[in-house]
Amino acid sequence: MAVINQNYGRLRDSYLFAGIRDRVDAFSRAHPDQRILRLGIGDVIQPLCPSVVNALQEAAREQGRRETFHGYMPECGDSQLRKAIAGYYRKRGINLKSEEVFVSSGASDELGDILHLFDRSLPALLTEPAYPAYADANVMEGREIRFLEAREEDDFAPEPPEEEITALIYLCSPNNPTGAVYSRDLLKRWVDYAVKTDSVILFDAAYEAFITDPAIPHSIFEIEGSGTCAIEISSLSKTAGFTGTRCGYTVIPDTLERDGLNLNAMWVRNRTTRTNGVSFILQRGALAVFTEEGQKEIQEALMLYRKNAEIFMHALDEAGIRYTGGKNAPYLWVKCPNGMGSWEMFDHLLNRAQIVGTPGEGFGRSGEGYFRFSMFADRSEIEEAGRRIRTLYK
Amino acid sequence: MAVINQNYGRLRDSYLFAGIRDRVDAFSRAHPDQRILRLGIGDVIQPLCPSVVNALQEAAREQGRRETFHGYMPECGDSQLRKAIAGYYRKRGINLKSEEVFVSSGASDELGDILHLFDRSLPALLTEPAYPAYADANVMEGREIRFLEAREEDDFAPEPPEEEITALIYLCSPNNPTGAVYSRDLLKRWVDYAVKTDSVILFDAAYEAFITDPAIPHSIFEIEGSGTCAIEISSLSKTAGFTGTRCGYTVIPDTLERDGLNLNAMWVRNRTTRTNGVSFILQRGALAVFTEEGQKEIQEALMLYRKNAEIFMHALDEAGIRYTGGKNAPYLWVKCPNGMGSWEMFDHLLNRAQIVGTPGEGFGRSGEGYFRFSMFADRSEIEEAGRRIRTLYK
Repeated sequence: MAVINQNYGRLRDSYLFAGIRDRVDAFSRAHPDQRILRLGIGDVIQPLCPSVVNALQEAAREQGRRETFHGYMPECGDSQLRKAIAGYYRKRGINLKSEEVFVSSGASDELGDILHLFDRSLPALLTEPAYPAYADANVMEGREIRFLEAREEDDFAPEPPEEEITALIYLCSPNNPTGAVYSRDLLKRWVDYAVKTDSVILFDAAYEAFITDPAIPHSIFEIEGSGTCAIEISSLSKTAGFTGTRCGYTVIPDTLERDGLNLNAMWVRNRTTRTNGVSFILQRGALAVFTEEGQKEIQEALMLYRKNAEIFMHALDEAGIRYTGGKNAPYLWVKCPNGMGSWEMFDHLLNRAQIVGTPGEGFGRSGEGYFRFSMFADRSEIEEAGRRIRTLYK
Repeated sequence: MAVINQNYGRLRDSYLFAGIRDRVDAFSRAHPDQRILRLGIGDVIQPLCPSVVNALQEAAREQGRRETFHGYMPECGDSQLRKAIAGYYRKRGINLKSEEVFVSSGASDELGDILHLFDRSLPALLTEPAYPAYADANVMEGREIRFLEAREEDDFAPEPPEEEITALIYLCSPNNPTGAVYSRDLLKRWVDYAVKTDSVILFDAAYEAFITDPAIPHSIFEIEGSGTCAIEISSLSKTAGFTGTRCGYTVIPDTLERDGLNLNAMWVRNRTTRTNGVSFILQRGALAVFTEEGQKEIQEALMLYRKNAEIFMHALDEAGIRYTGGKNAPYLWVKCPNGMGSWEMFDHLLNRAQIVGTPGEGFGRSGEGYFRFSMFADRSEIEEAGRRIRTLYK
């Protein structure tokens, strides 16, 4: 009899970030004097804003006094925070009950945990290239995975497939790694497809705060019909610099039902059985993000990353390198010039310009021939990287 | 085709705490002037100790400055904290590599998450009465559950079953709800059983800090042979008042293998795929618990709860009520006097003495006829409850 989950044996070793690290380390040892510019990692660098820091400190203080001490938190989230997040959605015309909002430890945690709601025989439909954990988490569940190639001619925002299958559909807009955004019309076609096929869309909105184009939806719930076919997983990691602080949120409409069960009620049951809620302290920090002051303050870091993208796009334009993203996303997805492969480009950039990026092939087979630059970097690094790119490709 | 996890439909509604709340609310409305003493809930009331509060505040401050800001944390835990926890075990003669220690969001979260490592056809073996989430989490996975009754004549610490089955074995010592502790010899018999049957023990050590008897093991890893058959899930919730702050730890020996796969390596893969680690801030708070100062400071709250238990045990003795627990655990497990059922006793205590406890039947069928009192309460409440119990049963 099997004791352990045999699907773990089916995982391929993840070599992407280890592979990058090994190559960068080797280069550093050989050239200790060279300044390496790191545009490879999707981690933020700007600190938490003052409102959040104050709220976190005040919450820690409260935990130190008997009169203000908080024990177990409501498993689905503090009611004040759930209400504040519902208020954030309301500003974009989306009416949610606070019971439709769940506080999470962050999008990456939630993207794995939420799979528990679904039958393991339900296939996952992933657009590719994609965040590698989407596929790995499904391999670990023994789920069949179908890949839908995001192609340059579709601006990396693919149409629903012709074949009608019932699936767990992953959509991520703004996209990691391509920086692509899904238009309202395209999302409507995905919602219609999901409704028609009884599929459920997992909408990863982790990068929504980077959208500047007013025509682009920030949320799947801006789309009519989504209330019966979608779950949205969002995060404060990129919005407010919470990558190392951890807090996010998930929306499950109470109109979402499959096989006669209500998914919102199922998630309540999951959280109350399998968690004791998110830390009081972190939820207080998150609440500060949604205050008027907090919303103003987080713009500073966001503007810095956006300006980074502008500067870098300008450099790529001058170097004649094709790319997508950058406008509504913190990532630039570059077509490797001169027919290079993506690891080839990695080595080329590291050796010739001491720039580290992420080979597109790490995001799936169809990422081969592409390369991701992250704009979560120092202004001085971005500027210097731009200069080196111009010199290298002119 | 099934879209959602059909096992959710097999869950019984959890009525325990809702049932208690409804009855208490009704009583309060009818008798607004009566002082109700609440000994029902397993949540701490003492604040975090000063070292932890300082560490949390300092960590929040660091997150507010670019130079000291922390982004993504290592998914399996901060190396300093993993080392500190390994050091905590070393004081009891247990040698762990820090890579065998994983930082978690708390025991309740981990008890659900860890199930992912196991094949769903592997039965769960639960001693009963038990923490209700053990069974519910397994029902949600569609796992077969076998119950092993913990009986009064075994001091609620049962022997392994005669039948040799391969299972996921839940052991909790000190036990919630019975307050029972497992002796070294008994744990050795469980370890031998697990080794012989290829089973894996999930050892819930959330209440280990309440052990005062030096003969009682705090950890399954004090037992020879456990390194090839056990996982230990622990928590700072009761040890250091982290119920609402959230941080715990899990030990998976790197010698634990089943079906040719290493469970420590599997858990690394699970965490790196499905999480982005525990908050930097919370891990800093947890680290302070393991300093010399922190270890001293947490004793204050622990001593208060222990003294509560002493006072209440004395009252039960005088009232001639039989109980177990209390000596090495924050719970007292009372035999309902006069052949009362556990909900009957609930109503009796509420109506006649305005004391709220937890009906044993809420922890499984074999809890019928028993009643749990929690010592996580104000001294004045405990003293008053003792007086009322004495008056009621004399």
